[in-house]
Amino acid sequence: MPEYVAPLKDMQFVLKHVVGLDLVNTLPGWEDVTEDVVDAILEEAGKLASEVLSPLNSTGDKTGAKWKDGVVTTPPGFKEAYHQYCNAGWNNILSPTDFGGQGLPHLIATPVEEMWGAANLAFKLCPMLTQGAIEAISHVGPDSLRERFLPAMVSGKWTGTMNLTEPQAGSDLSLVRTKATPQDDGTYRIKGQKIFITYGEHDYTENIVHLVLARIDGAPEGVKGISLFAVPKFNVKPDGTLGSRNDVKCASIEHKLGIHASPTAVMIFGENDGAAGYLVGEANRGLEYMFIMMNAARLSVGLEGVAIAERAYQRALSWSRERMQGKPIGVAGAKTAPIIQHPDVKRMLLTMKSTIEAMRALAYWTSAQLDRARMAADDTERKRSQALVDFLIPIVKGWSTENGIDVASLGIQVHGGMGFIEETGAAQHLRDARITTIYEGTTGIQAMDLVGRKIGREEGRTALALLAEIDNFTPKLAASGDANVKAIGESLTAAVKSARETVQWIARNFSTNAPAVAAGSVYVLKLLGITLGGWMLARSANTAAAQLGRAEGDAAFLKAKILTAHFYADHILPQTASLASAATRGPESVLAVEDAQF
Amino acid sequence: MPEYVAPLKDMQFVLKHVVGLDLVNTLPGWEDVTEDVVDAILEEAGKLASEVLSPLNSTGDKTGAKWKDGVVTTPPGFKEAYHQYCNAGWNNILSPTDFGGQGLPHLIATPVEEMWGAANLAFKLCPMLTQGAIEAISHVGPDSLRERFLPAMVSGKWTGTMNLTEPQAGSDLSLVRTKATPQDDGTYRIKGQKIFITYGEHDYTENIVHLVLARIDGAPEGVKGISLFAVPKFNVKPDGTLGSRNDVKCASIEHKLGIHASPTAVMIFGENDGAAGYLVGEANRGLEYMFIMMNAARLSVGLEGVAIAERAYQRALSWSRERMQGKPIGVAGAKTAPIIQHPDVKRMLLTMKSTIEAMRALAYWTSAQLDRARMAADDTERKRSQALVDFLIPIVKGWSTENGIDVASLGIQVHGGMGFIEETGAAQHLRDARITTIYEGTTGIQAMDLVGRKIGREEGRTALALLAEIDNFTPKLAASGDANVKAIGESLTAAVKSARETVQWIARNFSTNAPAVAAGSVYVLKLLGITLGGWMLARSANTAAAQLGRAEGDAAFLKAKILTAHFYADHILPQTASLASAATRGPESVLAVEDAQF
Repeated sequence: MPEYVAPLKDMQFVLKHVVGLDLVNTLPGWEDVTEDVVDAILEEAGKLASEVLSPLNSTGDKTGAKWKDGVVTTPPGFKEAYHQYCNAGWNNILSPTDFGGQGLPHLIATPVEEMWGAANLAFKLCPMLTQGAIEAISHVGPDSLRERFLPAMVSGKWTGTMNLTEPQAGSDLSLVRTKATPQDDGTYRIKGQKIFITYGEHDYTENIVHLVLARIDGAPEGVKGISLFAVPKFNVKPDGTLGSRNDVKCASIEHKLGIHASPTAVMIFGENDGAAGYLVGEANRGLEYMFIMMNAARLSVGLEGVAIAERAYQRALSWSRERMQGKPIGVAGAKTAPIIQHPDVKRMLLTMKSTIEAMRALAYWTSAQLDRARMAADDTERKRSQALVDFLIPIVKGWSTENGIDVASLGIQVHGGMGFIEETGAAQHLRDARITTIYEGTTGIQAMDLVGRKIGREEGRTALALLAEIDNFTPKLAASGDANVKAIGESLTAAVKSARETVQWIARNFSTNAPAVAAGSVYVLKLLGITLGGWMLARSANTAAAQLGRAEGDAAFLKAKILTAHFYADHILPQTASLASAATRGPESVLAVEDAQF
Repeated sequence: MPEYVAPLKDMQFVLKHVVGLDLVNTLPGWEDVTEDVVDAILEEAGKLASEVLSPLNSTGDKTGAKWKDGVVTTPPGFKEAYHQYCNAGWNNILSPTDFGGQGLPHLIATPVEEMWGAANLAFKLCPMLTQGAIEAISHVGPDSLRERFLPAMVSGKWTGTMNLTEPQAGSDLSLVRTKATPQDDGTYRIKGQKIFITYGEHDYTENIVHLVLARIDGAPEGVKGISLFAVPKFNVKPDGTLGSRNDVKCASIEHKLGIHASPTAVMIFGENDGAAGYLVGEANRGLEYMFIMMNAARLSVGLEGVAIAERAYQRALSWSRERMQGKPIGVAGAKTAPIIQHPDVKRMLLTMKSTIEAMRALAYWTSAQLDRARMAADDTERKRSQALVDFLIPIVKGWSTENGIDVASLGIQVHGGMGFIEETGAAQHLRDARITTIYEGTTGIQAMDLVGRKIGREEGRTALALLAEIDNFTPKLAASGDANVKAIGESLTAAVKSARETVQWIARNFSTNAPAVAAGSVYVLKLLGITLGGWMLARSANTAAAQLGRAEGDAAFLKAKILTAHFYADHILPQTASLASAATRGPESVLAVEDAQF
């Protein structure tokens, strides 16, 4: 039995019956995204995930990427797995068809990406970063760069990176200092140091295309003076073959808590005469371009939360069925039982399972909105979906990754003492998960984006419209013949009330008391994540009950779906009340404390 | 500046003004535990913690304990630190004066122990386990064993261990299989394998006294057939000098997520002709003896949660004052600021600070009750304190360690990307903390003990009496002239209401529906922890306000104390409502799910 098996049943149920494939296969170009096609894609991806990537997860953690004299060696098997992955075409499913990609919708790429993250998070980061670099170059060009770099990046022959962070510039990119000096031939010479560069150096491919934020000489201070450059590891001749080594080197890689197989590089650009760089898009618009890509990247990282949680859950579940310990409470005369029979262990497993299913459905629904925002025929519809995407991304990113950590930690707890032993494997998931609330914007950054740009500035319009949509839905739950579904409806209604009051509070206070809104922002993010996740599970339960009523589908799966949603409604949704209280009544007691009083 | 500085001000405030030294220095034998004496002890301990133990914490993590051919080598400096610690008398402050100990009250040993845990958790475990072994031998004897082992253990010349776990027997000790065969001379031959033995082998001392749970040939099955044995590494001659090596060996040590410097041993007893063992107390009462010691051990582990949280907080606070990033929100024209000025960072730091202070005060108050349960002159008073101790220990153990993990994780979050880099040091705290919710009984085990033996079986008598005591106190808060204190009173009153209703629900349901009570037990544990912690902070704030009114004490400290308590009241106490809901309305949706439905 593989350590990770893609949860195909749940993925398929969410795609077909909760999100609905019609959200994307009614859009131009995606008419052939049918149920059969989706099933075939997921099944194939699931095989690669279980059979090729997952078995490398633990060895990659133990061996880690190694640095010597500027050269990075990835753990045994990773390079071969990368080529197998690219040869099967998985790296280009989202890429533009113009350059050899498959141009599939995000909705389909999303469950596939979840599988890579669950099977081997450290591996998955390389294609994910490459995808971001491809998007940046293909969106803002110019054509000369597209032609020079994209074919090899889309085929997987070369990889890409994102070089944002510098020692003094992390969450605050206005502090970027890397310099770009224009040359007579229209290129630039790049000089500076970048840190935390995922796959900044590796041995998978012959070349790496770094996308680098830098300031052109004389550019304005702050975020408005940052431009985006493509800086290849090896210069590329006009015919596409490799030329001389560029003035870029990997000075070291970090010793990290987790994702050991993924090299996190310190990159030195222009230690000698400057690294040759090519401007991507217009000067001084680099940050804006980065943020265009950021939506997809943040959704990807949110999915990592779902993915690691799923893997941690599978391991804990398997252990809980094997490990015999203690008598099941309330069963007279019983002897030792598998620990899954103990109510508290069952509660932990249900917490894991229900949270994963809620996060998964919300992430998939969000990715469908991303597709619609790009491809819907109607302009109003595109704008509506874009507003939803903008609102949902920080929630999916922040909430799913925070949950990912909690679920991975619960996975250790289910194992008891064995969970603390590295050989068991449960601990790696917590170590790996721990970065996800930090990279691509911390939870605090997501929360500020949410309460500021996504709620405050528009007085909660998108949020309130979405909550109103849920209110239109809850009467269906109340009218259900299934007692579980009815109960779910009650909890969801209460959660939506808390969510609405909190959004309204933000709308009232954002312009007059932004610090107070900021102080409670992470609570708001969690409150909305829990509520929207609850909505997704309520839709799941309602659909499942309807299918059962029509004697359709897999009855065992559908019944479990309803019970899982009911658990979530009883155990997770009630947290919204205390989160609302902390978000709206709590800020003053944060702001009252002076720095010196700590 | 040392990485860890003992929080003397808060410790002293809690001891003198929240718990009150009079709880112990009115007891016979402890009359000289005065404020001055306490200050002197804490200050000296603080120096050793900061200057000797703390600097070894990170190197101990990196090097780890090493095993080779049955010999364990601890990281450089640990052995010397151990001798410095013993030479200064810190190892014996709790030990009986009959055998060279100082016999100090737990109330004073507790802050001292918190310091060791914060300075170097991996180090601290050795004296802690030795202390447990000393208690077992001194409580249940016989004299021959006391005289043979205790003087060297109390002086620190030898250490002690607790050997409970076997591969098939973790939380469920009824499954212990290690055998003890009686010999003609009254000793036993012990054969079996024990795992997860903390400091089961090391190089600090010339001898180790293992306390081992085993079954005497022909003993009853289950927990009623388990006896306790002392099994020294080297046999001890009648004159106290070391004889031949006993048939005990360390087969390996574990590769763990954290506490790397603490060797976690697999111990093989009696591989050849059986290890010589000495019965401690009466046959078949081993588990009962273990549980006598367990109270103190569980309090100790609860303190580890406080300790690691404190260290993680100090590190995060220091970073948040140095790291410049982002403009403080709502401050027009401001430039880059230390991140502590960002409301969300401040919220994280306050979450850490307020939780630590609540946990600390509750742990110290519990340790005072432990002293009173042993030494109060009046029998009723002893019984009352013992009932409180029994009720509080699982809360302090479970709640403080769960919080310890969360606070350590927040400590990483405050560091952003740097938190994920091992050299920063923040990650070690999370790795170290992760065992504390597992060893000495998982949170689930604590929670079952709480809702079963400590609430259900006595229909909530102790819990309800304590909640009534809080209700008698809250009117003082309502009458306060300080608006913060008033507000704290309102939150606390609401929390107590949730707590009482939940306890009453348990009292009604325990005998008829134990599985339902079990399913929500961890929520109950957290709910009571949060409420009692809130009570402690409310007492702190009330006392601080009174002192300020009398112009006594350190005004800056006292004001911060009130604001910290107010933060807790607004942000943490409201969680009690959702916990009460999940505990009482949630169990059915746990029990409804069959094992096959996962």
